[in-house]
Amino acid sequence: MQRQLAAEGLGTFFLLATVVGSGIMAEQLAGGNVAIALLGNTIPTGAILVVLITVFGPLSGAHFNPAVTLCFWLRKEISARLGGLYVLAQIVGGIAGVWAAHVMFDHPLFDASTTARWGIGQWTGEFVATFGLIGTILGTLKARAEMVPVTVGLYITAAYWFTSSTSFANPAVTIARAFSDTFAGIDPAHVAVFIAVQLVAAAIATWVFGWLLHD
Amino acid sequence: MQRQLAAEGLGTFFLLATVVGSGIMAEQLAGGNVAIALLGNTIPTGAILVVLITVFGPLSGAHFNPAVTLCFWLRKEISARLGGLYVLAQIVGGIAGVWAAHVMFDHPLFDASTTARWGIGQWTGEFVATFGLIGTILGTLKARAEMVPVTVGLYITAAYWFTSSTSFANPAVTIARAFSDTFAGIDPAHVAVFIAVQLVAAAIATWVFGWLLHD
Amino acid sequence: MQRQLAAEGLGTFFLLATVVGSGIMAEQLAGGNVAIALLGNTIPTGAILVVLITVFGPLSGAHFNPAVTLCFWLRKEISARLGGLYVLAQIVGGIAGVWAAHVMFDHPLFDASTTARWGIGQWTGEFVATFGLIGTILGTLKARAEMVPVTVGLYITAAYWFTSSTSFANPAVTIARAFSDTFAGIDPAHVAVFIAVQLVAAAIATWVFGWLLHD
Amino acid sequence: MQRQLAAEGLGTFFLLATVVGSGIMAEQLAGGNVAIALLGNTIPTGAILVVLITVFGPLSGAHFNPAVTLCFWLRKEISARLGGLYVLAQIVGGIAGVWAAHVMFDHPLFDASTTARWGIGQWTGEFVATFGLIGTILGTLKARAEMVPVTVGLYITAAYWFTSSTSFANPAVTIARAFSDTFAGIDPAHVAVFIAVQLVAAAIATWVFGWLLHD
Repeated sequence: MQRQLAAEGLGTFFLLATVVGSGIMAEQLAGGNVAIALLGNTIPTGAILVVLITVFGPLSGAHFNPAVTLCFWLRKEISARLGGLYVLAQIVGGIAGVWAAHVMFDHPLFDASTTARWGIGQWTGEFVATFGLIGTILGTLKARAEMVPVTVGLYITAAYWFTSSTSFANPAVTIARAFSDTFAGIDPAHVAVFIAVQLVAAAIATWVFGWLLHD
Repeated sequence: MQRQLAAEGLGTFFLLATVVGSGIMAEQLAGGNVAIALLGNTIPTGAILVVLITVFGPLSGAHFNPAVTLCFWLRKEISARLGGLYVLAQIVGGIAGVWAAHVMFDHPLFDASTTARWGIGQWTGEFVATFGLIGTILGTLKARAEMVPVTVGLYITAAYWFTSSTSFANPAVTIARAFSDTFAGIDPAHVAVFIAVQLVAAAIATWVFGWLLHD
Repeated sequence: MQRQLAAEGLGTFFLLATVVGSGIMAEQLAGGNVAIALLGNTIPTGAILVVLITVFGPLSGAHFNPAVTLCFWLRKEISARLGGLYVLAQIVGGIAGVWAAHVMFDHPLFDASTTARWGIGQWTGEFVATFGLIGTILGTLKARAEMVPVTVGLYITAAYWFTSSTSFANPAVTIARAFSDTFAGIDPAHVAVFIAVQLVAAAIATWVFGWLLHD
Repeated sequence: MQRQLAAEGLGTFFLLATVVGSGIMAEQLAGGNVAIALLGNTIPTGAILVVLITVFGPLSGAHFNPAVTLCFWLRKEISARLGGLYVLAQIVGGIAGVWAAHVMFDHPLFDASTTARWGIGQWTGEFVATFGLIGTILGTLKARAEMVPVTVGLYITAAYWFTSSTSFANPAVTIARAFSDTFAGIDPAHVAVFIAVQLVAAAIATWVFGWLLHD
């Protein structure tokens, strides 16, 4: 179990270091063209997800995401206790990843975001994004489990662009990004609604895809 | 059959949400540089196709496209009745996907496009694009069926750029995009010719690749 | 044999339609930023190569390139007569692909390029690019043959950027691109040296990698 | 052994030709937008790594990196003597690759870099980048060895953006890039600290992932 938690923590660490670090790099270099900055944020994020899920998948399942852990708990594939510890490791790893990005780019360690992410449009985006993420995971596990790293990486690559929130779809990521007043940040006051929508979408997707994919 | 239609509908929903949503996002952020906007539209579309065909392929074949359904009907691999229902599910799912994108980006639900897509050049583009798409599908199914999600995703990635229409190659997509006065839209008056060209190209490609690939 | 030549012709047709078509599209939209135009030319070219080699590989070997056909002839894996017909099909298919791109983008059919590609730097680039392409093909065939479509697509993606000529590495492509006064063109007077360098590099690479990879 | 060293040398040659060549090309064309230049440097580098590791993996293990060779020596999977020769081949191949890029782009052969890469942020970046690279290699070897070319290519794609140094993570690459006063260069006076950090990170990662991945 020690190694499972290390895998969840280390994986979420690298995920957030990439999301926040590439966001800072991209914004610094993009000369004000936000689409270019988002490309420079999207491509690294999709790429690192393929890597992290390949490497840590056999160890912990490579959730890196409390919404995914919720899904597997609802499916009775993880216990409440281990699931709770997973979520803890994800949050701690994610915040540490933000800090690492800040050190690498000479930002202050603590740095509450001021980026507003609020409104029906963004919440709909988080719902669609999380629903699709759970569908991607469950559908690929059923169809061709060895493709999960690739489909999750590509799904998030797409979701960064097709949702108005650039698709958080992950409560641990949402919390960690509240600590970063950079390209990828989110105002701490806007975190709770995002997380609520993500968890509801995950639960509904677990049920819908459970029906769609049953034998 | 219920689940096959759900798969076609849900898949085309996510396809259109991505095409239209990423088009809006990309255009908003690209600061007037249309090539950057098209990159931000292309990469998500190619990525989501790999995901959707992997996930829904085992359920419905993952057509998401009446021209593809026509091809399999001509090859007697789907009945007229199921094929008709597929097309219906694709159109309904596609329009719903456009609406979801509009909600996410605070656009009005109904929003007829005003983007002209007309002329010999564009129709030739649709012919070549659809011909190549059917060839990609039939050729990959024959050569290495498990690669279909990847080759279709990459084919559309290329076709967005090598055709002057950015490659619709799909009647359900064409109809749905008429409902969106955004980057990815098409003037409703220009839809019929696009669809006619797509269906003719699909039929010819079915025949040409039938010969080329027979045992 | 009829189908082998059709595969070579059709594959080179789509390759050139993509190279030239995406070049026109990218240049038109990039607002003068040539790096963005080259991205819009590179990504489609790499993508279509994966598709075309997957689809046509089992039919003809998917050479689409006289330098590759030369390599297999030197290795005695294709006869001089069939190799000669391959080259013919590649050149005819390539020119037809350029014409298709011109029709799609409302350019004149005949349109000799005026883009100078000349000098030690560019010829060194063509040498390195072709040497590496042959190494990629022979090495991947030996290591993991099913990866050839992916490695060739990725190799050309890289070579567009690491050579000063944007890496033609293919005599049929070089000839066809002389017919296009667009982003991807080459002055007809500069074609012969390019082809000579490509063929010499292919021959040397066949010998070097023959030694490196022998059992 | 001759062929192993040729593989290490030739692979590192193409890696550096790509890193430096695409850096020059990207910077020349990007019109001052450094994010676009970095995209044009990142995509070719990630792509060529997939190719080179696929092709040369079965011959030499495709290290191309003294930090990787150190890791396998610590794991007693390569002898000190062969490891030393690997490092030599990597450095010689890397410098030759820089020279090839300079010839292709009409730069002087010798050309010491003046790009400062110094400070806690950059060193932390090199530590994280190298630690993650070793984890990627060891983790993928354990989980799905045939995916190593893909995960390493994608890891470096991400690391170019999430570290403030654009992630060298390789002493041979660091030395070679000191010889190039171009986009990818590094001031020779700053090389030693980078290499020290890379080797320490590689040793620590070998130990951490040795524990995490043991049976």
